[in-house]
Amino acid sequence: MGELKVIGAWSSPFAIRPRIALTLKSIDYEYIEENLRAKSDLLLKSNPVHKKVPVLLHGDRPICESLLILQYIDEQWSPGPSILPSDPYDRAIARFWAAYIDDKLSPAMLGMKAESEEAKAEAMEKMKMEFELMEKVFKDLSRGGGFFGGEEIGYVDIALGSFLAGVRVFESFSGVKLLDEEKTPGLVGWAQRFCAHEAVRDVMPKSEKLLEFAKKAFFNQPADK
Amino acid sequence: MGELKVIGAWSSPFAIRPRIALTLKSIDYEYIEENLRAKSDLLLKSNPVHKKVPVLLHGDRPICESLLILQYIDEQWSPGPSILPSDPYDRAIARFWAAYIDDKLSPAMLGMKAESEEAKAEAMEKMKMEFELMEKVFKDLSRGGGFFGGEEIGYVDIALGSFLAGVRVFESFSGVKLLDEEKTPGLVGWAQRFCAHEAVRDVMPKSEKLLEFAKKAFFNQPADK
Repeated sequence: MGELKVIGAWSSPFAIRPRIALTLKSIDYEYIEENLRAKSDLLLKSNPVHKKVPVLLHGDRPICESLLILQYIDEQWSPGPSILPSDPYDRAIARFWAAYIDDKLSPAMLGMKAESEEAKAEAMEKMKMEFELMEKVFKDLSRGGGFFGGEEIGYVDIALGSFLAGVRVFESFSGVKLLDEEKTPGLVGWAQRFCAHEAVRDVMPKSEKLLEFAKKAFFNQPADK
Repeated sequence: MGELKVIGAWSSPFAIRPRIALTLKSIDYEYIEENLRAKSDLLLKSNPVHKKVPVLLHGDRPICESLLILQYIDEQWSPGPSILPSDPYDRAIARFWAAYIDDKLSPAMLGMKAESEEAKAEAMEKMKMEFELMEKVFKDLSRGGGFFGGEEIGYVDIALGSFLAGVRVFESFSGVKLLDEEKTPGLVGWAQRFCAHEAVRDVMPKSEKLLEFAKKAFFNQPADK
């Protein structure tokens, strides 16, 4: 099949997903950092429909869309640590929540970069409710384990966990905790475990760097450098 | 696992998808027609997050979101005629286009119910381009067979084909052909084969009935009855 490459961008939560999955499965790959302000011919040729990162290049075959890449990795390299559960019903539930995270929670998160203080506060409240819902989902899916996937990191962990660096940035801007011991105690512990995991810690954007990036991109504030 | 029920609504393109898949696999199910203007407790309890049809009830377990239901059916009842391809790369490509149909093509289709004639005409042009793209996808995926799935109806066939009754309605309202022999010759033949297929013909909404429904719902015109 040839070599394996991930086209990504360090600040994109979606782009770290395939990298986490490949590391979980102990699969070597080459990482190509894309400049999203001047997209490469390789990206445009590999993902002509959406023109977005991440793309997984498996030999000369491109696979696009981060959640679909996760499923491809899981199906192409099985057996091995599995990303999705093995039971069809559990798989459907994992796919449901991962889709929910991308279709509902992720756009709600972007709402927090609203212009007015009022709209920002409203968006923060909405996000807190989203995480309270995720707390319930965590209880259901983890079945007493430390991850949505149970004892190990799985599909929903990667889908939600990829936003954790962004969560920290929004928390530090607003002074409001999106995850806290009172309302989302399960997620507080989960977030620590996820970010410290060996498959995650090296690809998760550093909070300080993302904060500087976000100041410019989201909040119209001058970055420190 | 207990009995199998599909909660649907006759006019919903999404709701016919699981019914087509179950018929392809020769699986018996009970169909429950939902009143979308007064949603049942069963629907609200089964799909509390989105409150939408279709829902597949497998015993007391609800599975939501039509594309996820298709994957569940395929995984739960295998072997048997398969909905998704068996090769991981082909599966990723099928999932990519099914997601594209729901995320891009389907909203573009709803754009055709715009208020002004100008906006309507623009939306029709956009839709024609979407179908020209689908013509290319058909050529790639069908590999000379009569369906996106090759020789048999598959995942992308069901995703796109479920909109064909709606396509006919928009064509008859606008007088513009969305599928034609010049630009989309492959899709013209495909649409005929799909709608005539024994797994499809009994669940596809009748054009006349859908036209009357659409007059009221989309075009603010009085229905004939």
